[in-house]
Amino acid sequence: LTEPFARPAETPYAADAVVECVPNFSEGRRPEVIEEIVLAARGFEGVSILDVASDPDHNRTVVTMVGAPAPVARAVVAMTGRACALIDMERQHGAHPRVGAMDVIPFIPALNMTKENCVALAREVGREIAETLGIPVYLYGEAASSPERRSLSHLRRGEYEALRTAIAEADRRPDFGPAATHPTAGATIVGARAALVAFNINLGTEDLFAARTIARAIRESSGGLPAVMAKAVALADRGMTQVTMNLTDYRVTSPLDVLDAVSKHAADLGVPIVESEIIGLVPLDVLVDLARRALKAGAFTAAQVLETRLGRPS
Amino acid sequence: LTEPFARPAETPYAADAVVECVPNFSEGRRPEVIEEIVLAARGFEGVSILDVASDPDHNRTVVTMVGAPAPVARAVVAMTGRACALIDMERQHGAHPRVGAMDVIPFIPALNMTKENCVALAREVGREIAETLGIPVYLYGEAASSPERRSLSHLRRGEYEALRTAIAEADRRPDFGPAATHPTAGATIVGARAALVAFNINLGTEDLFAARTIARAIRESSGGLPAVMAKAVALADRGMTQVTMNLTDYRVTSPLDVLDAVSKHAADLGVPIVESEIIGLVPLDVLVDLARRALKAGAFTAAQVLETRLGRPS
Repeated sequence: LTEPFARPAETPYAADAVVECVPNFSEGRRPEVIEEIVLAARGFEGVSILDVASDPDHNRTVVTMVGAPAPVARAVVAMTGRACALIDMERQHGAHPRVGAMDVIPFIPALNMTKENCVALAREVGREIAETLGIPVYLYGEAASSPERRSLSHLRRGEYEALRTAIAEADRRPDFGPAATHPTAGATIVGARAALVAFNINLGTEDLFAARTIARAIRESSGGLPAVMAKAVALADRGMTQVTMNLTDYRVTSPLDVLDAVSKHAADLGVPIVESEIIGLVPLDVLVDLARRALKAGAFTAAQVLETRLGRPS
Repeated sequence: LTEPFARPAETPYAADAVVECVPNFSEGRRPEVIEEIVLAARGFEGVSILDVASDPDHNRTVVTMVGAPAPVARAVVAMTGRACALIDMERQHGAHPRVGAMDVIPFIPALNMTKENCVALAREVGREIAETLGIPVYLYGEAASSPERRSLSHLRRGEYEALRTAIAEADRRPDFGPAATHPTAGATIVGARAALVAFNINLGTEDLFAARTIARAIRESSGGLPAVMAKAVALADRGMTQVTMNLTDYRVTSPLDVLDAVSKHAADLGVPIVESEIIGLVPLDVLVDLARRALKAGAFTAAQVLETRLGRPS
């Protein structure tokens, strides 16, 4: 690898910038392959791999890593190279929609990193993957080149199998790389987005009707709350049902807004709310935002959290 | 200074323990004296001074510092030595009750530090101040040697002026050092306590009646909520009144509990709540606890906050 990310002109990031990157690759069943792809990201100074979550049904692995922008970029390009070599999309099947071996690479602001910085980083990484690996790359989210391309489901329509031929059509041309899918690795989607909050609310009934009704009422796609994705799930072992959600922009619709809305619908349906769950990692700012809202303390900031001050010189 | 805090037998703290220490000294008017006392704490490797807040009316300065237990202990003993040399209690006057030049030194758990660790550290520091500076030391809070001595106001009754003679009485004997106040520095109170949350709620009325009524209703001392201190203050410039509070144990009574209670009383009195304020620093755990309560997400932990994972090796 050349090191384009080290060139000063292309790394306009703060010296203490931290970015989160959550690459999703299309292998969730073969442990030795998963390990080898993740291994490619290890050893980059300044990159921490926080989580590796594989799902055999989805046949997909989600890696969460954080660090300075340049080494995180290098690490995810290295992972993409290994995914390209070890996954054959002609043979890959699973429940999760996908267009390629390294299916999607979102960059998310963590510390001292703006949305614009993440867009710039997504473009750099997209260009690098196209140029060094010959994989066509689509930009999505905040980095998208058109409004429709902001959406992953739009870019994934028909999945890998349809994209093989559709990629030659004018409106499906990639943002970087050849207008042809890679023979084994398909295509890769790279972008920038706000931190996503995975938030579930569990209802005290085994009947899915209430969870389905509430999910439909609150999700953006059916006219509910903005930046909310929701569906109903049975939790058979626990005798409950769940409204499982992704909040794609917690500053637009926060977990507290969602709990309020779900509580009202549940009350109308006569169903009790048992508990909520925040799944996985959230940025500190989610909690700061919650304090502002729940306590009506609009002036509260992350700088007031003791732990953010630790280790600074006096 | 000898270094008693470095002896392994006396430092049973975790290798990555962080303690918060908030020394209060009895000088809030002479900037050069304040600076010299604070200077004594600088330069201890591993100690961060987060805040220095002086109040001329109170004639008092509150320093917030964090770091590993041993260097924080050394730093606060050094500050006490400078306060002892530069403040003469025979001439010191101000609105805030006090018994000495270095009036009170609380230790508060921050990271990987238990309440018991803080009690042990308070005892070490108290003994050190008594032995090296000849200042009588009282232990308070979780470190107190009797139930009455848990309270600062009990230990400060009559203040420095009364203590000069009362210290010889059996029930006012110090825990360490001579049963006589130091000729210039008086006495020092050292202890351990939970993190304190300074929380204010602003009411949309200039009439102090509502704030006084609510403060009386909610404070522990008049039979209200446990671990809540409250009083009424006029905010003349802003055309509001305030219920200003210290929450001495947010796990017992959280800011959310307080806001709920104050909201009910304010509604009964027909007075609107304008906003709340969290003053100064709070531990991350205050926000984690808030998320658990406000979102009914009882299983949420600080380990799910992205920033707590940064810088860890992958």
